[in-house]
Amino acid sequence: MAVVIGIPVCADAAERRTPIVPDVVKKLRAAGAEVVVEKGATAGAFLDETSLGEVSWVDSTDDVLAVADVLWVIGPPSDEVLAKVRPGTVLMGLLAPYSSADRLALMNERQITAFAMELLPRISRAQSMDILSSQGSASGYQTVLIAATRAPKFFPMLTYAAGTIRPSRVLVIGAGVAGLQAIATAKRLGAIVDAYDVRPETKEQIESLGAKFVDTGVSAAGSGGYARELTEEEKAQQAEKLAKAVAACDVLITTAGVPGKKAPVIITEAMVAGMKPGAVVVDMLAENGGNVAGTVAGKEVRVGPAHIVGPTNLPSRMPVHTSEMYSKNLLNFIAPMLNEGLLNMDWEDEVIAGACLTHAGEVKHPMVKQVLGL
Amino acid sequence: MAVVIGIPVCADAAERRTPIVPDVVKKLRAAGAEVVVEKGATAGAFLDETSLGEVSWVDSTDDVLAVADVLWVIGPPSDEVLAKVRPGTVLMGLLAPYSSADRLALMNERQITAFAMELLPRISRAQSMDILSSQGSASGYQTVLIAATRAPKFFPMLTYAAGTIRPSRVLVIGAGVAGLQAIATAKRLGAIVDAYDVRPETKEQIESLGAKFVDTGVSAAGSGGYARELTEEEKAQQAEKLAKAVAACDVLITTAGVPGKKAPVIITEAMVAGMKPGAVVVDMLAENGGNVAGTVAGKEVRVGPAHIVGPTNLPSRMPVHTSEMYSKNLLNFIAPMLNEGLLNMDWEDEVIAGACLTHAGEVKHPMVKQVLGL
Repeated sequence: MAVVIGIPVCADAAERRTPIVPDVVKKLRAAGAEVVVEKGATAGAFLDETSLGEVSWVDSTDDVLAVADVLWVIGPPSDEVLAKVRPGTVLMGLLAPYSSADRLALMNERQITAFAMELLPRISRAQSMDILSSQGSASGYQTVLIAATRAPKFFPMLTYAAGTIRPSRVLVIGAGVAGLQAIATAKRLGAIVDAYDVRPETKEQIESLGAKFVDTGVSAAGSGGYARELTEEEKAQQAEKLAKAVAACDVLITTAGVPGKKAPVIITEAMVAGMKPGAVVVDMLAENGGNVAGTVAGKEVRVGPAHIVGPTNLPSRMPVHTSEMYSKNLLNFIAPMLNEGLLNMDWEDEVIAGACLTHAGEVKHPMVKQVLGL
Repeated sequence: MAVVIGIPVCADAAERRTPIVPDVVKKLRAAGAEVVVEKGATAGAFLDETSLGEVSWVDSTDDVLAVADVLWVIGPPSDEVLAKVRPGTVLMGLLAPYSSADRLALMNERQITAFAMELLPRISRAQSMDILSSQGSASGYQTVLIAATRAPKFFPMLTYAAGTIRPSRVLVIGAGVAGLQAIATAKRLGAIVDAYDVRPETKEQIESLGAKFVDTGVSAAGSGGYARELTEEEKAQQAEKLAKAVAACDVLITTAGVPGKKAPVIITEAMVAGMKPGAVVVDMLAENGGNVAGTVAGKEVRVGPAHIVGPTNLPSRMPVHTSEMYSKNLLNFIAPMLNEGLLNMDWEDEVIAGACLTHAGEVKHPMVKQVLGL
């Protein structure tokens, strides 16, 4: 019996991405797997019966659960769906592992082997499986487009018959994948870009994109490619230096996240109050509390001189390409486990073991246990 | 007595631009003119008592009308305001000259000397006064940003750890100032750009921006920098060739206007039906009837496979820079008339005579008379 990969309709009705695309269908079939898709699960990404390729279409989530050995999802399934999953089913996708101890208990009760792609070890071999990175690049790109459509100024320098328009100054906070893509996009659009990250090793990357590194004298090099939390003293020093850069910019993009934690508030109320009239802020961390004082998730608000945008689920805004990347990342994750159509998990593999959230009735990931107090 | 230039609050409450900016205040004063501004008239462009410079602020439109020799406006004043203008007042700005014969009658009744910048002769000496061009470049820039934020794909090529994302294909119809700026912006963002204009002389400009010219074999070289209207036969030939390009693109931007006329419908219902699933259309001519069948001004609509956006008043979305350009254009228009603080109009000057809409109780512009049947 070939392994069956099932794609149920997403729990979040607003989600437009899908974890399966035509190219990946072909490759899964070539590896001996079958694909079962619930009708409608791919509609948000403009894929349907005519375009997805050789998959079996079924009418309901129950029909998917009845035959699937592996479920590919975007975001955790609802508790209602989890309660019906057949014991031993393997679940793969972004699963928001830190968000609910109750959900993990339910997964364990159902004996689900869950791989949360947020937990993927950030080692070089796993880069091609890294959903956070691929989706992060889309988020960074979108933040700049959102900012540019709201900015009262051109980003590029413009020479017209009566004079010259000076380019906008964009400040990007956080130089992870999303921040670097934001820098690259703002540069593409012709802005002058300054960027800041607490990890001093990002200086070189920032400069290689043509942006200027804002040096605050504070370093917070962390592990796993993320920053550690700063002390109060370090935060004060950072804030003082940053306030100047914030006051000078036309557009501020914030992208600084810490895994498993609420986003750090890096841009204070006072810094926002000191911005230029008409300044635009896009806070990519809005869903996670925000990097900016005053951000409201899912809203655009005027705070003093600034217009603050708190967009949610940015990758879902460009579902054709983000689905393609998401699906290829999952393919690269599952491919080493597929052997002549059968699923074979090597628990000695640090990528497989490291991304495992639950297995055999237990929460497996140490940091998730720590954050949720399990 | 120095000439007084007055800035009333705009008739359109949604308008964010202002015809006066600090640099132009300085230059008007240096030329011996005074500037009177109604409170609130510059707020949309983030200019106020502290930033605009040496102007007199007054509380009401009536206060402006009482002292102004020249009124600078964005869009025609309301009939209510026009009815109170002192006879002999000079009016300058975008005045929508083709939109209302009744308004022109009212202007003549009040003996207003009106210069509609839409009528400015498109000769090289007048380029620095050309508001349609300066605002058009902002509109073209905005169309692409709007399209990019709605597109389900990246514009640029993107190499990520699991593969490569192919760049989007953008088709721009109309290669006037706005169309050329749209091409340049889409290229900046990394898209592959095709462009089309009925005027074959645009081919070189299109190609110089790195885009490919769509050759339909139809030429409609017109006068004054605009295209003439096509015959039915030419339209059919154009449509056949264009349909292919439309079917191949991910994003379609239309910018094809004819002065004094409703926008030509260039993209038919059938062409829209033949687009890719998830294709995005931004129709810059929405306010003027639209270049695309199905466009609704001020709305975003799904038509078959396409998402059609019909934005209105695009320049108002970036009021800091469009106000700067608008104001400098007006300054360049009025500067030759200013002589030691007095206004002196040389009716032999083809720019002054050509831009004149009404004077001494008469509609002066032949094409306006023709279009409105006066």
